[in-house]
Amino acid sequence: MNAKEIAKMQTENVLLGWSKQGGLDPIVVDHAEGIYIYDTDGKRYADMSSEQVNVNAGYANKEMTEAIKAQLDKFAYVQGSWGAESRAKLAKSIIDRLPDCFGKVFFTNGGADANENAIKIARMYTGRFKVMSQYRSYHGSTFGAGNLTGEPRHFALEPAIPGFIHFRGPYPYQEKIHFESEDEECEYYVERLREQVIFEGGDRIAAIILETVVGSNGIIIYPKNYLKGVRKICDEFGIMMICDEVMAGWYRTGKMFAYMNFDVTPDIITFAKGVNSGYIPLGGCIVKNEIAHFFDDKYLSCGLTYSGHPLACAAGVACQEFYLKNDIESHVQKVGKHLGEKLEELKAKHKSIGDVRYIGLFSGIELVKDRETREPLVPWGQDPKGIMGAIVKELKSRGFFTYSHENVIIVAPPLIITEAQIDEELEKLDDVLSIVDEKYI
Amino acid sequence: MNAKEIAKMQTENVLLGWSKQGGLDPIVVDHAEGIYIYDTDGKRYADMSSEQVNVNAGYANKEMTEAIKAQLDKFAYVQGSWGAESRAKLAKSIIDRLPDCFGKVFFTNGGADANENAIKIARMYTGRFKVMSQYRSYHGSTFGAGNLTGEPRHFALEPAIPGFIHFRGPYPYQEKIHFESEDEECEYYVERLREQVIFEGGDRIAAIILETVVGSNGIIIYPKNYLKGVRKICDEFGIMMICDEVMAGWYRTGKMFAYMNFDVTPDIITFAKGVNSGYIPLGGCIVKNEIAHFFDDKYLSCGLTYSGHPLACAAGVACQEFYLKNDIESHVQKVGKHLGEKLEELKAKHKSIGDVRYIGLFSGIELVKDRETREPLVPWGQDPKGIMGAIVKELKSRGFFTYSHENVIIVAPPLIITEAQIDEELEKLDDVLSIVDEKYI
Repeated sequence: MNAKEIAKMQTENVLLGWSKQGGLDPIVVDHAEGIYIYDTDGKRYADMSSEQVNVNAGYANKEMTEAIKAQLDKFAYVQGSWGAESRAKLAKSIIDRLPDCFGKVFFTNGGADANENAIKIARMYTGRFKVMSQYRSYHGSTFGAGNLTGEPRHFALEPAIPGFIHFRGPYPYQEKIHFESEDEECEYYVERLREQVIFEGGDRIAAIILETVVGSNGIIIYPKNYLKGVRKICDEFGIMMICDEVMAGWYRTGKMFAYMNFDVTPDIITFAKGVNSGYIPLGGCIVKNEIAHFFDDKYLSCGLTYSGHPLACAAGVACQEFYLKNDIESHVQKVGKHLGEKLEELKAKHKSIGDVRYIGLFSGIELVKDRETREPLVPWGQDPKGIMGAIVKELKSRGFFTYSHENVIIVAPPLIITEAQIDEELEKLDDVLSIVDEKYI
Repeated sequence: MNAKEIAKMQTENVLLGWSKQGGLDPIVVDHAEGIYIYDTDGKRYADMSSEQVNVNAGYANKEMTEAIKAQLDKFAYVQGSWGAESRAKLAKSIIDRLPDCFGKVFFTNGGADANENAIKIARMYTGRFKVMSQYRSYHGSTFGAGNLTGEPRHFALEPAIPGFIHFRGPYPYQEKIHFESEDEECEYYVERLREQVIFEGGDRIAAIILETVVGSNGIIIYPKNYLKGVRKICDEFGIMMICDEVMAGWYRTGKMFAYMNFDVTPDIITFAKGVNSGYIPLGGCIVKNEIAHFFDDKYLSCGLTYSGHPLACAAGVACQEFYLKNDIESHVQKVGKHLGEKLEELKAKHKSIGDVRYIGLFSGIELVKDRETREPLVPWGQDPKGIMGAIVKELKSRGFFTYSHENVIIVAPPLIITEAQIDEELEKLDDVLSIVDEKYI
């Protein structure tokens, strides 16, 4: 089959998520390697978003490919009640690298069901049913995860699940209140959250869940002490603090998990994506010892056919070994610093950039109509003229592949990217931003 | 690492679903082939439940193994917006084998999120929000799928999602009303359902979802015309009929999908498991043309990172080709007939068997204390003495691996099983049932 036939076959037979289906014309992939995807015409695309911030180790990683093949030659799958070496090893490798307070891993298929199960576990453990999450968050699109989500993608799941409550967190760049300092802003939002917890009944709340760094909704990095403040509220009321590390985890921010940048420890960590770079669907939640052992003599009412899928875990073991052997942590810190400097240069040059936010290789460029008023380039929740789509398309035509959400362009390349590769790709971004400056501002 | 170390590592680091965690001692798998799993001591277990009714093509299937390796050498994963041959081919292969009324496939990671997305799609398409599902059903354990589920595994998800409503379906063996015929029973349940639809407001209901054959909750096969009756109600009120084929699909019942045995056509089919025999997590929903094209110019508010995962789809293409090339459909019909005869023989012999139910290679043995009263061997929702667990353990010690739910033992081996293999394994079942007759009745 040629590319045209494959593209036609796909659009005629497959529903694509988060889209209208009319007029789709997918570019057909031939192969992929390192940070690059190649289409069937041989055109090269640098994957500057790691697809959906999941291909952390890049494409065609040899160690992972070999590990998957080796596992396949033994068995692809047996259910969780059997012992499977890859499953045991991956869980141990995760727990061993975390503070002693963490006990066990419950594996899922991805990030949405990681969050679903984290909430279920928090409810069972606390005996409470309310859960709180932030506006401007994305936690998945199944009913539980989607009801946590604090943006339009939860509308399709209304009427909402009882006891799912949203709160406002800090978004420093678009803050309307004049604060004297970051600390003051932080204090304000922590205090409002504490009030809301009291309004809702502190002893009725099982969990507060937040993305450690807000991902899809614009790479929002909280003021330094915000998560500490949330932790304090959780401690005061016996609430489980869940850090959603689905995007931010696995060295994306220069640490194994993003929470490690903020001097806090959650009670439950949820993960997916970078755990095995998406080679095979895998996610999970990591719980503290007291939660893990709560279920020694109590029934864990969670389960799924593919929990701890051995082939997915084999990819996970190899992926984690790859991160460690290549000291991806230090690499991300180093090239992440370089990326940050480059983004600041772009900001200095382009009037369409209101803000650049970056931590490790997790970054976003917020586009505005006016730097003074900080008015977003497109209004929230809508883009009637398709401006952001046009920008992303322009980048793609130059071989720079990423995506946007609201008025933010995501830059989150595979963690193996080099400084030279960053420079090469940001030149393309520079060109496109010049067009944006001219055309839309 | 030796088996003991792996088992210890797993129990110390992994939470096992649907279980108390204390005292677990998993048997470690070395490799698996055909219908057999081999532990590290070389002991052989016939997988008489296809794990969780998913390993339809058996273990170490050459075609699938090769296909996964070949895809790995090109790329493991790219997101849904890219064209990928395996994704396009699998969807086309599914649609091509279905009646012309079916349009497109939306891919997910498994059965739970297949059901989650089917409901979302039905709601968007109809503009209504209520969904109805049966008691004694299992549709998954995430919030949406778990709220559809009509047995204790939804308790952890309460308070329930607004608009999720349960109804009673027929369970002929345990029916308390005296009906003159199957038709009369069928008519009664269809009429009760129609009444309930009217009570709830027929024009407020987006979907009625049911397992085409009830799986986990006891392989309950409906009276011949029941699904037709449900279809008629759906037509009358403009309700989407969703057949959950997660367990029953992919030739398990001797047809591609189980609904094909009952002379009806649903509006949405959900699937997982047998689509690629669980080698890589994969599920999805198949929608009719009018639903598919509804989203041509309307936003499909569904999505997940791994929708249409190319490696999972490559396994799916190979699995489906394997089914077709080996005419698994006819094979299942033939050996399924043999299995049914053997189960009837066991029933004639063992007083602990109240009922045997079978369709294709999907069967259950319902154990009772008393054939006269039909009192289940263990009360519903509990097994304080662990009787069913002990029976399953006894089978396992003889190399017959399966699971039980309530008072039913599941017999659903890989679809490649031969009559000779069935005979060999059912002898073990025969032995264990003799113990049950003596010990528990």
